[in-house]
Amino acid sequence: MSIREELQTMAKRAKKAARIMAAAGTAAKNLALQNMAQTIESRQAEILKANGEDLAAARQAGISGALLDRLTLNGTRIREMVKGLREMIELPDPIGEVEMERVRPNGLRVGRMRVPLGVLGMVYEARPNVTADAAGLCIKSGNAVILRGGSEAIRSCRAIGQCVTEAVQAAGLPSEAVQVVETTDRQAVTELITLDGLIDCVIPRGGRAFLQWVARTATVPVIRHGDGNCHVYIDSPVDMEMAVKIAVNSKVQRPGVCNAAETLLVHAEVAPRILPVLLSRFSEAGVELRGCQRTREIYPAAQPAKEDDWMTEYLDMILAVRVVENMTAAMDHIAQYGSGHSEAIVTSDYMHAERWLREVDASSVLVNASTRFTDGGQFGLGAEIGISTQKLHARGPMGIRELTTTKFIVRGQGQIRE
Amino acid sequence: MSIREELQTMAKRAKKAARIMAAAGTAAKNLALQNMAQTIESRQAEILKANGEDLAAARQAGISGALLDRLTLNGTRIREMVKGLREMIELPDPIGEVEMERVRPNGLRVGRMRVPLGVLGMVYEARPNVTADAAGLCIKSGNAVILRGGSEAIRSCRAIGQCVTEAVQAAGLPSEAVQVVETTDRQAVTELITLDGLIDCVIPRGGRAFLQWVARTATVPVIRHGDGNCHVYIDSPVDMEMAVKIAVNSKVQRPGVCNAAETLLVHAEVAPRILPVLLSRFSEAGVELRGCQRTREIYPAAQPAKEDDWMTEYLDMILAVRVVENMTAAMDHIAQYGSGHSEAIVTSDYMHAERWLREVDASSVLVNASTRFTDGGQFGLGAEIGISTQKLHARGPMGIRELTTTKFIVRGQGQIRE
Repeated sequence: MSIREELQTMAKRAKKAARIMAAAGTAAKNLALQNMAQTIESRQAEILKANGEDLAAARQAGISGALLDRLTLNGTRIREMVKGLREMIELPDPIGEVEMERVRPNGLRVGRMRVPLGVLGMVYEARPNVTADAAGLCIKSGNAVILRGGSEAIRSCRAIGQCVTEAVQAAGLPSEAVQVVETTDRQAVTELITLDGLIDCVIPRGGRAFLQWVARTATVPVIRHGDGNCHVYIDSPVDMEMAVKIAVNSKVQRPGVCNAAETLLVHAEVAPRILPVLLSRFSEAGVELRGCQRTREIYPAAQPAKEDDWMTEYLDMILAVRVVENMTAAMDHIAQYGSGHSEAIVTSDYMHAERWLREVDASSVLVNASTRFTDGGQFGLGAEIGISTQKLHARGPMGIRELTTTKFIVRGQGQIRE
Repeated sequence: MSIREELQTMAKRAKKAARIMAAAGTAAKNLALQNMAQTIESRQAEILKANGEDLAAARQAGISGALLDRLTLNGTRIREMVKGLREMIELPDPIGEVEMERVRPNGLRVGRMRVPLGVLGMVYEARPNVTADAAGLCIKSGNAVILRGGSEAIRSCRAIGQCVTEAVQAAGLPSEAVQVVETTDRQAVTELITLDGLIDCVIPRGGRAFLQWVARTATVPVIRHGDGNCHVYIDSPVDMEMAVKIAVNSKVQRPGVCNAAETLLVHAEVAPRILPVLLSRFSEAGVELRGCQRTREIYPAAQPAKEDDWMTEYLDMILAVRVVENMTAAMDHIAQYGSGHSEAIVTSDYMHAERWLREVDASSVLVNASTRFTDGGQFGLGAEIGISTQKLHARGPMGIRELTTTKFIVRGQGQIRE
């Protein structure tokens, strides 16, 4: 069987399973989650053994550092996976909810019922725990899913996938609702993202080049997870202490993630007072600073920023700093260089806060809060499958609800159109 | 300037205009709609003259029948266009609404604000009135739009576009919020649907081959408008009179549109009683019937249906008829052959009605009502920009709300992440 035929067969099975999943009740889906948690817990040794093999192969291939860390499972990480699945049980099940129902003049009742998307394709990197998270979210939202983890994590994903499949089946749901692609051939991804009519939506996660390749290649709808070139803008008037606290937290608390700040913008009126304090604080924390000319006049220790710096998602202990004339100039900077992820203002001005919320175009806009809050858990959505930076369908952290769609339902009493 | 450069220039202007449109108030947007209606009304002679030139060119090119009819403007059609624009003024403006706001344990207020999509690309066929409809919907929803009508309608679209642009400007909004592509070169469409980062969403309308080409070629997100292979299923038990009325209306009231029924499914228990009456009624109305074997045993005048008939959107006075064992068999038929547009059941059984609404996977599912109701106006959405058969973002008739997205807004008081 060719890889295309193999993927087609999986997708056809998934489509059949999706019809059953769509009609499944909350109790059955929660039982599947409960079973998943239990099975992963009880087969921990088996999963860790598979992960050990992945790690050995990765080391042999010269993989190290952050990538090796992301690939690594241990008791704590498995406990987190299991905890995540148990928490999904508590989340509300949106399937079947009817929204915006209204009665038309002719007596027709027209509403929108929330339903699953159908068959999802998840393509992700080396983190094996995504297999359990994604499977759990897809099951709770009534979808079927085909999972394709990074090839470095293939043995770990297979072991976790095995647990999940059995758990789903033990809950009386179709085992084909969760399938793991077992080949490491990259062609499997190409096939998956071009199975029109069989896959309803692909959610890719990974680096910029990979995501761009998916956008170009896919013929099925894709939910894009883009870069996080996030900004903190310190306005005038402002509470200096709050501004320092939020700017430092946005950059330093976890610099390697997409909601960390990459550029600091500061109103020219407050820059001379706030920058000496704030930028020393950054330097002490080990952050390399790259400033515009006005920044360097105030704080000469900063390196000069180049045009490229305004566009870069460092994901590292580096911060670009720019002094701007006013809030409008800050908003123009963000419109030009931002990636539409998370944009925070620190301000004491009511009108500025409202204008920021209304006009800045990003998945998440924040007033007087750290950019690091852009997260499904922090926003109260429960577990998240990723953070969308596209505008269609889902924008910002994606939870269970974002894995669903609606259909119009019409209740008539014999109406016909005149 | 090459076509690509031309489209890029238009898109960059649109992007700039989109920022202003996003912040525009309802009053300014309504004034633009009012101006559009007035300008089109007062320049009717000019528009009809341009349309006359399009019609002459079309006739010379051998175009006739339905296509020529769709291309034709006259006093009545212009009055309808103007009326449509005036009705949009009355529709609620969703921009700025905040939904699902909640307070997190740390005091952050997290909500979702409804915002425009940004820059839209509309690619459509020969109907010049779409230029006014689409421009109106895009303005009301705070978007900028680039319109590309069918090349046969180029002079009409340009004339209407000219009115629209002036009307928008006279309302104090940027004239670049509505731009009409003036070249008839097909390459302009290719460029438009590949302007990543400049165009937020493309809405193509047209035939199946064209839509498939767009899906394959586009790199910007697309909202697909698919086929309408719609079904009416007559269940058992059923009110015979209601079943006849709904089946006939679904097929005959306007057979050339996407929400007309193409296949009739009938429960085996009621088929012997209902088919003789119903199918004679269809024959009298001039509908050609293509039946399964059991249908032909009951009503021998029907032609034999082939496998292809179950898949065909006739858009014509032809109906496929199949007798099915029960509702599950009807649902299986629809899952196999349906295009996910509109699926109606006629039934007296409460449990069947509820199961139909829950389990049939289509943009619109109807109980005891004609499929012909799937329409933005009939559903109470106001004007529609089309009917989406995809699942992401918008499904079913698309009104103003479907031309918007949300962003997370976070109101803090200095919160940082621990």
